[in-house]
Amino acid sequence: MTQIVPIKTPLRDIMPEPTLRRLPWYLAYVSMLRSRNVEYVSSTAIAKEINVEATQIAKDLSFLNIRGKTRIGYAVAALERVLRSYLGFNREHNAVIIGVGSLGRALITDSGLTRYGLDIVAGLDVNPEIIGSSIMNVPVFDIKDIAEVRKNFSAEIAIITVPVEKAQETADIAIAAGAKALWNFTPFRIRTPEGIVVQNTSIYAHLAVMYNRLNLVNP
Amino acid sequence: MTQIVPIKTPLRDIMPEPTLRRLPWYLAYVSMLRSRNVEYVSSTAIAKEINVEATQIAKDLSFLNIRGKTRIGYAVAALERVLRSYLGFNREHNAVIIGVGSLGRALITDSGLTRYGLDIVAGLDVNPEIIGSSIMNVPVFDIKDIAEVRKNFSAEIAIITVPVEKAQETADIAIAAGAKALWNFTPFRIRTPEGIVVQNTSIYAHLAVMYNRLNLVNP
Repeated sequence: MTQIVPIKTPLRDIMPEPTLRRLPWYLAYVSMLRSRNVEYVSSTAIAKEINVEATQIAKDLSFLNIRGKTRIGYAVAALERVLRSYLGFNREHNAVIIGVGSLGRALITDSGLTRYGLDIVAGLDVNPEIIGSSIMNVPVFDIKDIAEVRKNFSAEIAIITVPVEKAQETADIAIAAGAKALWNFTPFRIRTPEGIVVQNTSIYAHLAVMYNRLNLVNP
Repeated sequence: MTQIVPIKTPLRDIMPEPTLRRLPWYLAYVSMLRSRNVEYVSSTAIAKEINVEATQIAKDLSFLNIRGKTRIGYAVAALERVLRSYLGFNREHNAVIIGVGSLGRALITDSGLTRYGLDIVAGLDVNPEIIGSSIMNVPVFDIKDIAEVRKNFSAEIAIITVPVEKAQETADIAIAAGAKALWNFTPFRIRTPEGIVVQNTSIYAHLAVMYNRLNLVNP
């Protein structure tokens, strides 16, 4: 559900989003295989485990710089390395987080994000009681100073964890401060100018789907 | 991305998942309008704000028990109430969380979930150092006792925040203990028997899409 505006620069090899969304599943599976010291895996074996057609998997992996061997399959360690690298999980991406409330604080304390290449380097908030404090060594600044903070920490990504009614206003402020990508945790559909990447992750919206299906399956 | 197996009981009015996923956007927007004391809103006005076609919005809202007035639109307060109720956000859904590590702890401390109808009533883990402790009044039990804990707390939902290589094993344990819905935060594609609802929310997978688009837009 990334909103992306078409770019008018020469066309490059843009990976379709469904493929991009499946790659982390493959990575998860091959990481597990590696932890079990499995050396090779075929797309058929992956398919069986994660419910994606083998032909689809082979097609998805053809975007990467790796080839399976006939009748043996892919080398697990190499496939894991290539996937992790392609997905950007082994690089450091700096992010500021706007809104250091309950969810913002939770994301700062989640060390899992670091393992997937995301470094939350600073928090920004309007609340004078937390401005000047730090959470797990992440300093919290006044939202007024966002432009300077973002620049000093070389953060291209702004994570938006403000109350839903502040989502658009916060997005505008982040973009004005030079953010190139917004990771929006509110269910609000923010509007952005061309060239800004928006990733929506509304975990609360996912709850609605689950409740609904739960009632249907177990009336 | 909820995996749902077709049910063979008489067909009921099942809302398409895309519609279900848009409803929280409408709710977010009308909640904001209500906080600004706006009384009526048309589907055209909503469309303008959140980038969904007005006809689509009208169609989505037709699933709900509410009608807009010609030339005036929907009553904001009523629409908010109907949406919140339809989405199940005003009911209490009990959940146990399996894996009280960094992400699990973060979800327990996120009071936002409660506002969307989810009560995390207990944690389960294998780590003897945290078994017996509590986090924000949520007690942590031994995973061995999951069946009893789940039953005592009337929790139909199990949240899975274990390391990726334990995802399938944990799902199997949760289902054996009587869980009817799994909220899977790992990127692993777990397999489940018929009748079990699975909601996948891999926030780390979303990062991959964002990194990729960020590199394309800002080479």
